[in-house]
Amino acid sequence: MNFPQIDETHDPARSSWVEGADGHTDFPVQNLPYGIFSPPGGTARAGVAIGDRIFDLKGAARGGLLPAAAAAVLDGTTLNALLALPGRDRIALRQALSTLFSDERQSGAVEPLLHRAADCLLHLPAAIGDYSDFYVGIHHATNIGKLFRPDNPLLPNYKYVPIGYHGRASSIRPSGVPVVRPRGQRKAPDADVPLVGPSQRLDYELELGIWIGPGNPLGDPVPIAEATDHIAGFCLLNDWSARDFQAWEYVPLGPFLAKNFQTTISPWVVTAEAMAPFRIPQPQRPEGDPQPLPYLWDEADQAGGALAIDLEVYLSSARMRAEGLAPLRLSRGPASSMYWTAQQIVAHHASNGCDLRPGDLLGTGTLSAATRDGYGSLMELSEGGKVSIALPTGEQRTFLEDGDELALKAVARAEGFASIGFGECRAVIMPAR
Amino acid sequence: MNFPQIDETHDPARSSWVEGADGHTDFPVQNLPYGIFSPPGGTARAGVAIGDRIFDLKGAARGGLLPAAAAAVLDGTTLNALLALPGRDRIALRQALSTLFSDERQSGAVEPLLHRAADCLLHLPAAIGDYSDFYVGIHHATNIGKLFRPDNPLLPNYKYVPIGYHGRASSIRPSGVPVVRPRGQRKAPDADVPLVGPSQRLDYELELGIWIGPGNPLGDPVPIAEATDHIAGFCLLNDWSARDFQAWEYVPLGPFLAKNFQTTISPWVVTAEAMAPFRIPQPQRPEGDPQPLPYLWDEADQAGGALAIDLEVYLSSARMRAEGLAPLRLSRGPASSMYWTAQQIVAHHASNGCDLRPGDLLGTGTLSAATRDGYGSLMELSEGGKVSIALPTGEQRTFLEDGDELALKAVARAEGFASIGFGECRAVIMPAR
Repeated sequence: MNFPQIDETHDPARSSWVEGADGHTDFPVQNLPYGIFSPPGGTARAGVAIGDRIFDLKGAARGGLLPAAAAAVLDGTTLNALLALPGRDRIALRQALSTLFSDERQSGAVEPLLHRAADCLLHLPAAIGDYSDFYVGIHHATNIGKLFRPDNPLLPNYKYVPIGYHGRASSIRPSGVPVVRPRGQRKAPDADVPLVGPSQRLDYELELGIWIGPGNPLGDPVPIAEATDHIAGFCLLNDWSARDFQAWEYVPLGPFLAKNFQTTISPWVVTAEAMAPFRIPQPQRPEGDPQPLPYLWDEADQAGGALAIDLEVYLSSARMRAEGLAPLRLSRGPASSMYWTAQQIVAHHASNGCDLRPGDLLGTGTLSAATRDGYGSLMELSEGGKVSIALPTGEQRTFLEDGDELALKAVARAEGFASIGFGECRAVIMPAR
Repeated sequence: MNFPQIDETHDPARSSWVEGADGHTDFPVQNLPYGIFSPPGGTARAGVAIGDRIFDLKGAARGGLLPAAAAAVLDGTTLNALLALPGRDRIALRQALSTLFSDERQSGAVEPLLHRAADCLLHLPAAIGDYSDFYVGIHHATNIGKLFRPDNPLLPNYKYVPIGYHGRASSIRPSGVPVVRPRGQRKAPDADVPLVGPSQRLDYELELGIWIGPGNPLGDPVPIAEATDHIAGFCLLNDWSARDFQAWEYVPLGPFLAKNFQTTISPWVVTAEAMAPFRIPQPQRPEGDPQPLPYLWDEADQAGGALAIDLEVYLSSARMRAEGLAPLRLSRGPASSMYWTAQQIVAHHASNGCDLRPGDLLGTGTLSAATRDGYGSLMELSEGGKVSIALPTGEQRTFLEDGDELALKAVARAEGFASIGFGECRAVIMPAR
């Protein structure tokens, strides 16, 4: 497993001359996430976030400021070609950018290409060919399973198979695009026939997204030892879910309309390179759990395949915002509650020869912590809708109401390194049409 | 429901001066399906099949032979922009092509743009944004359900919900691309732990594909009365399935690696316009079945929303081909065994606001007839692997073996009209890597 290595770009002493890049920011010079943005009056192009600025990568490539391999693929309106580059080319780009932003002598060339992020529009970073969603949050799988099978929450395949399914690529939207409450069929357990109407159990799911870098040809599996070479970066992902539709439609082929009305992601690709200092051992499997099958087993992956990321979820109702109240934190937990690593997810997905392509997106599934204060969905927090959550206004929530704004947050932290954030992943719920 | 109407392009008396376009062909002048092909030594471009020739639509557009709206979108290497056109523009293109091929005075302009199909390479007709697969073949759903639940084969949602799930777009290939036998996890019912290896229960599924034309914006459902406006055409689709992987992995999120290693389609888009003469009433629901819910109910759809298409499946083993034996027909049945129409599938898919895009592909699910001679998969024909099928060589089959070639065939037939075919949908099984 060739994880990206820690180098001078991760040096916590390195600071940036760019305004807003030091102190409390998701995007210090140690992060350097890529995205697609439109500057005021301009068209969509590649950029990198630094502090509260966005640096125009297309302009920098044309201006000869960047290494040739990366510069050659930075002219388009998606990052797919950048994601397709081998890791060494992405590392060279990262190193060049780190120098541009930390060496004040470069400011003359760089400053004309910096835009205030607040003035820019952020787009999806890639044309997402396929989106697959997994189910590796074992506490989530257990909590949801308990609602259906109290004595036997995890199905027999769970500890052998990184369970996943295909999601909808067309309805993925970047942070900030409102979510229209979906209509659909639901059937109460005691009803004879289903009803059609707006979802009454609209929920979020706290997930990480994995951006595929170089792909694999159809028919050629990705060995677990090479899986990291196919991971370009990460984002936050909210897999909005209509629990009432899901319960009625999901047998025998899995969730469909309960999930595909929208998926929200944070628009910045936090690179695998940036995550180098935040690699931690995969938590030991509980006594008695089976060893992963050989195609999913790699010593180095077990030693450093998990990520030290803190995850949080915030809710604010329309009334809370009107009254100037701060969002309520619904949960806080670690991303290391994944039963399978990102590398195991990739190796499993391609194990049958399925071809992954640059810019494909994989979701981890809901990342709930072991304890209630870290549950990653309202389905779990409200125990299937039975327990209300009190908001500071006195309002109560079991599921999301119109006007609610839901925000996910992620910060990677490691002793002796600068913390790096993932940026915004939020959306407001709009009434059904 | 504004189904395309029968016009002079469907006149069975209309014949073509193009060689091979009369008599026994899938592609008489009444068909005119679109595709993407490379002529010998040339690059990929749009074309239309006529007899055993392919007419270069890009060249025709540049040569001023086609209506302006269509000509403006025929320059690329996919048909997505053509599929996105409103029906009236596709009808104008069809009428122009019908005239070019039936009026011998046009042969001087047309002939230089005709290529022998046998010399050309056929590609996927569109960049498929999303692929969804349904389960509307009620006899298939019943047959498969019986293997698990003999007394209660159909789940309670089946007659209310056009059940579907998301499939994998990246691994869709045109007819002729071999299928590598996938590796994966399987667990025998009496085994304690799963094994990993090549699938031992590799199967096909006989389906129709539905090509989405104009899309719908995210958040805006497609009313059933307008669903036909979003259907540009049809193809054959083989949803290759590893039954052993499927049985182990599919709970609770549905099939994944059992299906996504490859999907084969016929490369020609048989247009909704060409299908006008083959519209038939949707079969009456059996006594006691619920009426479709209002968002799925349309009188005109019930009166003419089904299609008169004969479907066949042929198998030839490597030994059969070596001995010069004709392929064995495994089944023959009608496409009208769909419990839900194509229009109901589209309306349901978009009912929660999910955005469909031009060039998206929807599979119907396996279309098995009511009787064994029309079953659309080996799982059904072999009763879950218990009954062998004898090949003319004396070989036996329960599931597919390496070297087997599987071919789907479809012909639309109606009294008083020229029959039109769908072209080839076949592939050979290669050994696991």
